[in-house]
Amino acid sequence: MIKAGIIGATGYAGGELVRILLGHKNVKIEWFGSRSYVGEKYASIYRNMFELIEEECLDDNIAELAERVDVIFTATPQGYLASLLNEDILHKVKVVDLSADYRIKDVSVYEKWYQIAHKSPQFIKEAVYGLCEINREQIKKARLVANPGCYTTCSILTAYPLVKEGLIDANSLIIDAKSGTSGAGRGAKAPNLFCEVNENMKAYGVASHRHTPEIEEQLSYAAGENVRISFTPHLVPMNRGILVTGYALAKEGLTDQKVRDVYEAYYGKEKFIRLLEQGVCPETKWVESSNYVDIGFQIDERTQRIIIMGALDNLVKGAAGQAVQNMNLLFGEKESEGLEFVPVFP
Amino acid sequence: MIKAGIIGATGYAGGELVRILLGHKNVKIEWFGSRSYVGEKYASIYRNMFELIEEECLDDNIAELAERVDVIFTATPQGYLASLLNEDILHKVKVVDLSADYRIKDVSVYEKWYQIAHKSPQFIKEAVYGLCEINREQIKKARLVANPGCYTTCSILTAYPLVKEGLIDANSLIIDAKSGTSGAGRGAKAPNLFCEVNENMKAYGVASHRHTPEIEEQLSYAAGENVRISFTPHLVPMNRGILVTGYALAKEGLTDQKVRDVYEAYYGKEKFIRLLEQGVCPETKWVESSNYVDIGFQIDERTQRIIIMGALDNLVKGAAGQAVQNMNLLFGEKESEGLEFVPVFP
Amino acid sequence: MIKAGIIGATGYAGGELVRILLGHKNVKIEWFGSRSYVGEKYASIYRNMFELIEEECLDDNIAELAERVDVIFTATPQGYLASLLNEDILHKVKVVDLSADYRIKDVSVYEKWYQIAHKSPQFIKEAVYGLCEINREQIKKARLVANPGCYTTCSILTAYPLVKEGLIDANSLIIDAKSGTSGAGRGAKAPNLFCEVNENMKAYGVASHRHTPEIEEQLSYAAGENVRISFTPHLVPMNRGILVTGYALAKEGLTDQKVRDVYEAYYGKEKFIRLLEQGVCPETKWVESSNYVDIGFQIDERTQRIIIMGALDNLVKGAAGQAVQNMNLLFGEKESEGLEFVPVFP
Amino acid sequence: MIKAGIIGATGYAGGELVRILLGHKNVKIEWFGSRSYVGEKYASIYRNMFELIEEECLDDNIAELAERVDVIFTATPQGYLASLLNEDILHKVKVVDLSADYRIKDVSVYEKWYQIAHKSPQFIKEAVYGLCEINREQIKKARLVANPGCYTTCSILTAYPLVKEGLIDANSLIIDAKSGTSGAGRGAKAPNLFCEVNENMKAYGVASHRHTPEIEEQLSYAAGENVRISFTPHLVPMNRGILVTGYALAKEGLTDQKVRDVYEAYYGKEKFIRLLEQGVCPETKWVESSNYVDIGFQIDERTQRIIIMGALDNLVKGAAGQAVQNMNLLFGEKESEGLEFVPVFP
Repeated sequence: MIKAGIIGATGYAGGELVRILLGHKNVKIEWFGSRSYVGEKYASIYRNMFELIEEECLDDNIAELAERVDVIFTATPQGYLASLLNEDILHKVKVVDLSADYRIKDVSVYEKWYQIAHKSPQFIKEAVYGLCEINREQIKKARLVANPGCYTTCSILTAYPLVKEGLIDANSLIIDAKSGTSGAGRGAKAPNLFCEVNENMKAYGVASHRHTPEIEEQLSYAAGENVRISFTPHLVPMNRGILVTGYALAKEGLTDQKVRDVYEAYYGKEKFIRLLEQGVCPETKWVESSNYVDIGFQIDERTQRIIIMGALDNLVKGAAGQAVQNMNLLFGEKESEGLEFVPVFP
Repeated sequence: MIKAGIIGATGYAGGELVRILLGHKNVKIEWFGSRSYVGEKYASIYRNMFELIEEECLDDNIAELAERVDVIFTATPQGYLASLLNEDILHKVKVVDLSADYRIKDVSVYEKWYQIAHKSPQFIKEAVYGLCEINREQIKKARLVANPGCYTTCSILTAYPLVKEGLIDANSLIIDAKSGTSGAGRGAKAPNLFCEVNENMKAYGVASHRHTPEIEEQLSYAAGENVRISFTPHLVPMNRGILVTGYALAKEGLTDQKVRDVYEAYYGKEKFIRLLEQGVCPETKWVESSNYVDIGFQIDERTQRIIIMGALDNLVKGAAGQAVQNMNLLFGEKESEGLEFVPVFP
Repeated sequence: MIKAGIIGATGYAGGELVRILLGHKNVKIEWFGSRSYVGEKYASIYRNMFELIEEECLDDNIAELAERVDVIFTATPQGYLASLLNEDILHKVKVVDLSADYRIKDVSVYEKWYQIAHKSPQFIKEAVYGLCEINREQIKKARLVANPGCYTTCSILTAYPLVKEGLIDANSLIIDAKSGTSGAGRGAKAPNLFCEVNENMKAYGVASHRHTPEIEEQLSYAAGENVRISFTPHLVPMNRGILVTGYALAKEGLTDQKVRDVYEAYYGKEKFIRLLEQGVCPETKWVESSNYVDIGFQIDERTQRIIIMGALDNLVKGAAGQAVQNMNLLFGEKESEGLEFVPVFP
Repeated sequence: MIKAGIIGATGYAGGELVRILLGHKNVKIEWFGSRSYVGEKYASIYRNMFELIEEECLDDNIAELAERVDVIFTATPQGYLASLLNEDILHKVKVVDLSADYRIKDVSVYEKWYQIAHKSPQFIKEAVYGLCEINREQIKKARLVANPGCYTTCSILTAYPLVKEGLIDANSLIIDAKSGTSGAGRGAKAPNLFCEVNENMKAYGVASHRHTPEIEEQLSYAAGENVRISFTPHLVPMNRGILVTGYALAKEGLTDQKVRDVYEAYYGKEKFIRLLEQGVCPETKWVESSNYVDIGFQIDERTQRIIIMGALDNLVKGAAGQAVQNMNLLFGEKESEGLEFVPVFP
């Protein structure tokens, strides 16, 4: 039995992690960490867990946690884990970090986009970027996994094979992303109130969103050169789901079949990536509450562009589901254990 | 392995049945029946099932189906199963009927409320009303289970112990029910269009909804006398969920503790019924996509009334989940097998 | 030109007041009061007003305000106006109070339900309860109008004629009310976040909501005796709209025609009250962003009950619209001036 | 008094036209045309109009209509007006066509994208493309106005000044558009059901949507050369609103100030176009149920691109509101008459 501790268990990603781990046959959650709710019953915060969890929320104490569990999940604000992590902890437990602290290899890029100083840059190098379908083998051997962001998981998985195989001009890539509101977190801010989000749509973080360098870094590895993209997130009046629409210049003569072949070569055996039939566009509802990423594409011969589309559930494959997938890899569990949810529709 | 056939597999209840059975370790779906989509791939109708189901939809052929499967689920319009059922079928397979055809024992009541003639009244008597928590032992021995309606499951389970124990005046009971829109089905009708339902709320079927006599019949058994109630359903702009608010005159001197004790006596050991803590009101979101019913109550001393509240997911405990729970009872499976979903939030 | 000042102009009711007054041909808003946003441009809070309002928000200074305007609207928390009002102010300006401070004549009832001491009970008696269709003549002569609450406007207008004419047993009345989320205000609280409200429904304030005594008081006047009712509000995932479903024992032999005749007698000439055709149930969407109240009813002969239903927009007829209607009466304007919105659909 | 007739009065655009014209002080609607509802009261289809409209729906008879009214609005399927229009009609009345029949000057382009033969190409040349802010003077003199589409109005108005002044490379323009569901019309189709749209998002018509050539034609006029763009529409779970996010290569050295200056030069005096403050992104809610278009932009120096954003209400400025604005121009009314709605929020 893997003993798991969660720091930040009462945010939406933390709550989703709890939901998923409850159904994992080899995991027991030992620590429901939530600084805001210390001493309150976890199930009084998330009543969906009523009668399923009796434990109370505990304060954050990573040192004690490291003694008691096998894996720590941190679903915490940027900079938090970086300020606490040390060799001793990594010596004792595996860490899956859902924040951005160890995702970006170039610390100056991190510090510029996140506007904070990185407190433990010495661990950045060893951290493995936890995109399971891309970095599976490295993850298996890691101590510290940097779990990718929601927008980034969707964007990278959708574009990666085409960039890697040179089917598109990576620097021409424009990603227009749309996200459900759970991505904004559970903080009580006026812009996230029901009446402000409902019946509304807007872009935000235009030309400045922090997931941009994360996408660029991974696509740069794929391209073998520095890649610069445009990334624009939008807020959508729905709870869950990310839809990514990507636009790129296609290599001359690119055909549907060629694109399909490349996607198949990369993802044909991937359980959690589904390449849709020709002409079918992904819909966020078809992957809701599951760990799937659905991918579709359309070549536009008029403009020599290819439009690529990806959809996932931001709290599952975009956060907690992928974190569990990483944990499974770390501990030699079946990769899909606890994650075989059939998407819920409607 | 239980072989299951579904007639009406492409409605919302049918789709949910498929979702649930896919996760049941001892069931294989042998027949995806859908008259409207014969020959089309099931996963092209419900793309959430893409790569999970390869089968095509088959026409309705209950005779052939009875040869091939162990259990038939009918998620069909009123009168459909009644027009087809015969002794031969019941001799060969178990039938779980999600329509209302065998729910009401008095055929004249059925014919009056549903405005159709019942074609096989001879099976009404043996049909067991499939409210598992109330009729568990009879269900185990049944050939034909009349799976309760969504509003009725919520209404009856919420009121039953109080009526049975005489804590409330059953004839004073008024049930104001609110339902998500999946309860209206997948038929392409203008009133169910997004723009007609969204940002809107209304009552419908006032003083005439067909679930009324079903609730009355079951509460009459509990009361030991004929009970008449008011029942008003409302349409809510959400996909799933039923919330029932019931009002009844309380027996003099009724206390919170007495009410709790009675609920505990009836449901304390029931996995799928959760009696909330004092002062907590059920929310549909806390049970979403799960098989739970959450119950709460409040005594109003000013008016001598008790307000009882229940919440469930209309497609799970209110339809497909309860159908699977019934199937589990019929076949000696663990009652909760395939149904241990943690509710999804948010 | 009527000069108007608003205290609490950045709440949802305040914002709606601004929207409505902008279209009123004889009003100029002189004071956009908002303690939280002093010095910020009003249109930077409510960007729908961009280029329509250049003014900045001002601090609350009721004394100065009384010098500068003809009418003050207070869309403020309970107790606020009561703590400030004095004879000097009322001598200088008319006041329309959207809070509950002067709605309830019995100060002990107010203090019990609101759990605060009333600081200026001396004005309660003269305050006129601003339900225009009921108290039109008194309003015209008032200095201080207690603008009714949203639930109460809908509940009282729906039930009033039947209670007044003795067609129903007022003490049997149960009101099950459903409200859009703007009724919860613009405060940044976790339960009002999009992800907590969306796809969810719940009751709240069961047997304890503060609008209960307000409804009871007005219906008691109608009945000519003390009336006690049950009132249960529910939160619905939509921005605007209140739907009230009322249940009461009908006088023996009550007919549809009799009920219609009574409603017609009371409301036949009322511009803002629409009695729907027989069998039609009100929908909140049909009155959205307008000042209408739509009323429907159904007699249930099985239970001897009548179900009455009313719908309005909580921010218009349930708050700001009614406040402007009251202002029009106070200043001899056409009662519907500025309020002739056609409901927006969809 | 302008006498108006509407063909297609019961679609969502038709309904919105009725709502707007009811508030126009110099218009009387003489003909509520709706083939599907002939003989039914208009207000029984759109109950928001209850007590506001007593008329019944009439069949389509454009010849008779031409005798009786001054202006005909056609909110009809593609090809309908083209099949009926003749010189006699245009001799008698002004026609504002909300369909695409006369928007595209090159009939072969129309026939290719719409897959129907154009029945009256002889009128294409004289038809004026009714984008008021661009073609104001020609509209005033027109007999036949081709009212622009919703996506196109938003896309063109947002991009036009920058293309015209050569600040961007028009052929690099990619428009990612998001629309509320009323844009899909009131037809009873399964994909538009509440449960299919709600909590969901998808692209559709990728590389093939019919508004593409309409945008290209207008931007080609602006650019003075043939322009080819990418245009991808998306369906969003909200009733109203279009948000357009455009991406284009910026001329070297382009500055915020330069962009603002150009927008100001074109739109500074336009009542219905609002250029937002620097850094503010348009939100559909801020223009809801009004005739405004809100525009914002952001230069991304990293990628040399500019991101332009526009928002409007698809049923108002994107359909009925613009149609009325055109009518006002045709008849010498004040251009904003009947259209001075303050956007409704929330």
